[in-house]
Amino acid sequence: MTLPACAQLPGMPMVGLGVWKAPSDVTAQVVYDAVKLGYRHLDCACDYGNEPAVGAALKRLFDEGVCTREELWITSKLWNTYHAREHVLPACQRTLDDLGLDYLDLYLIHFPIALKFVPFEERYPPEWTDNGNSGVMRFADVPYRETWEAMEELHAAGKAKHIGVSNLNVQSLVDLLRYAKVRPACNQIENHLYLQQGKLATFCHDHAMAVVGFSPLGAASYVGMGLASADEDALKDPTVVRIAAAKGKTTAQVLLRLQLQRGIAVVPKSQSAARLRENLDLGGFELDGGEVKQLLALDRNRRFNDPAVYAKGWGEPGSWLAQHGYPLYE
Amino acid sequence: MTLPACAQLPGMPMVGLGVWKAPSDVTAQVVYDAVKLGYRHLDCACDYGNEPAVGAALKRLFDEGVCTREELWITSKLWNTYHAREHVLPACQRTLDDLGLDYLDLYLIHFPIALKFVPFEERYPPEWTDNGNSGVMRFADVPYRETWEAMEELHAAGKAKHIGVSNLNVQSLVDLLRYAKVRPACNQIENHLYLQQGKLATFCHDHAMAVVGFSPLGAASYVGMGLASADEDALKDPTVVRIAAAKGKTTAQVLLRLQLQRGIAVVPKSQSAARLRENLDLGGFELDGGEVKQLLALDRNRRFNDPAVYAKGWGEPGSWLAQHGYPLYE
Repeated sequence: MTLPACAQLPGMPMVGLGVWKAPSDVTAQVVYDAVKLGYRHLDCACDYGNEPAVGAALKRLFDEGVCTREELWITSKLWNTYHAREHVLPACQRTLDDLGLDYLDLYLIHFPIALKFVPFEERYPPEWTDNGNSGVMRFADVPYRETWEAMEELHAAGKAKHIGVSNLNVQSLVDLLRYAKVRPACNQIENHLYLQQGKLATFCHDHAMAVVGFSPLGAASYVGMGLASADEDALKDPTVVRIAAAKGKTTAQVLLRLQLQRGIAVVPKSQSAARLRENLDLGGFELDGGEVKQLLALDRNRRFNDPAVYAKGWGEPGSWLAQHGYPLYE
Repeated sequence: MTLPACAQLPGMPMVGLGVWKAPSDVTAQVVYDAVKLGYRHLDCACDYGNEPAVGAALKRLFDEGVCTREELWITSKLWNTYHAREHVLPACQRTLDDLGLDYLDLYLIHFPIALKFVPFEERYPPEWTDNGNSGVMRFADVPYRETWEAMEELHAAGKAKHIGVSNLNVQSLVDLLRYAKVRPACNQIENHLYLQQGKLATFCHDHAMAVVGFSPLGAASYVGMGLASADEDALKDPTVVRIAAAKGKTTAQVLLRLQLQRGIAVVPKSQSAARLRENLDLGGFELDGGEVKQLLALDRNRRFNDPAVYAKGWGEPGSWLAQHGYPLYE
């Protein structure tokens, strides 16, 4: 059974491979394996630090004739340090060069947080602070509109077939929709069993934006970072376990399928061929209304990727940022 | 004991009289009584529909020499239908004319929602929809920056000594702070025992914005509107009742004092002289650290003034707005 098309971006497969936290040395192999297994959607970002490795995999895949460029959907994201108008195109070009591509299918503004510019030769990717991820976070006075207009220029120049946003809430989207000449095609947000964001997703869908959910399997990536505890693992949620058993599917498949049925695309990450296969194999079953209802009832409004938590201590000593992190979602 | 000054806006008394939902026919008397009792801060808005009545009270107070204009702090708010650059000054002037004033101490953008312009002669106040509060909500393509820049022009013209915002979340504030030439002096937000908004308030304070909390006593105004249930009344919360009894204060005084100790100004409404007096009499006691901690622990993140609830049904039939309301805080 084939998967449903994305209603807002019909060319974007609803299941992609996320490469966040894929170590550079294994990324090329994982991407190669995934595309061989049938993945046609790759979710990349400058910040993930592995775009050259993705590029190496793409070259091999194209050289071997596994697929063509046109058969793939490749997303990347503009990092926070490149929000100023003059840095947006060079940042996108750097991503394109690393990936070995002429164009992206989708280019997103990674966070609505503009940080001080860091030249490529000084540090790449520049991460969150002036010392990678351990120094002080330094802001830049760049309004979001300036960045969006530069994104529109990229789009006009053919560098990205579609442009979109990430980590935006409704208030920000409302304002963006007031001035956008090219409307945002997508909002990529944290989305999983315990952070369902129903109102935000509905708002996006009803404004013709695709919703891509990152971390669709939940806590896994965050436990090792100290941002989630092991008992927050949706893969072990009793309701999910029960439904999975009844369906003869894995709990991961149930969690991913739930999002697809909500019209939300998913970009799970895996390094194992078995899991890569499993995560893509979501077309052969359907959750019924009662099952969906039970799963939706498990929402905890629990955000794992929250700068209010992980950015704590990154400000000037004594500043709000040092003390309170970055309450982006308040 | 005098009340603490507002750290961010030293001229603004920390306790004001809110006139939202004060019926026009009693407003003049309530405002007059309140100022006679010692109130020096009035929280008004075009949308409250009673600025002429406030103006009548002010004239009487000034005529009788109860206080001077300079001794009062008067806030008003720009309604949603006047966000376009050319409507901001006329809307402020209408408010000034109704109040009988030459200037406001503080003028706020009421909501980050731009609605289609409604001429004064067609309907004033225009409320939320094309038929007051029962028709269809019609948006206007006005970016927030355009409105803010017009607010800056007002400020330069001396119509408002300070300008600010209301109902903004952190993402919106972050963007506003990037382009504001006159920084917002205040964010007025719903704030009470069950919606404490600690991170948002801290963010505002640390960015030199006063925080004014509306509905500081909680559910009371919303029960009659069907937006809160009687058992959500913070005035009857057992912890509040216990602390009030121990202090020899009313529960209202405890709830208001809590906000003052958090550095948040309050604008409770009352029509009774006894309650007006009580709400202002907050200087004679202090909640200790343990009491504050117990009260802060009662946060429920419960929003009563939520367009996602009350704007449901106000959209075109079948639209996201009709179905889901306006998820402004998602």
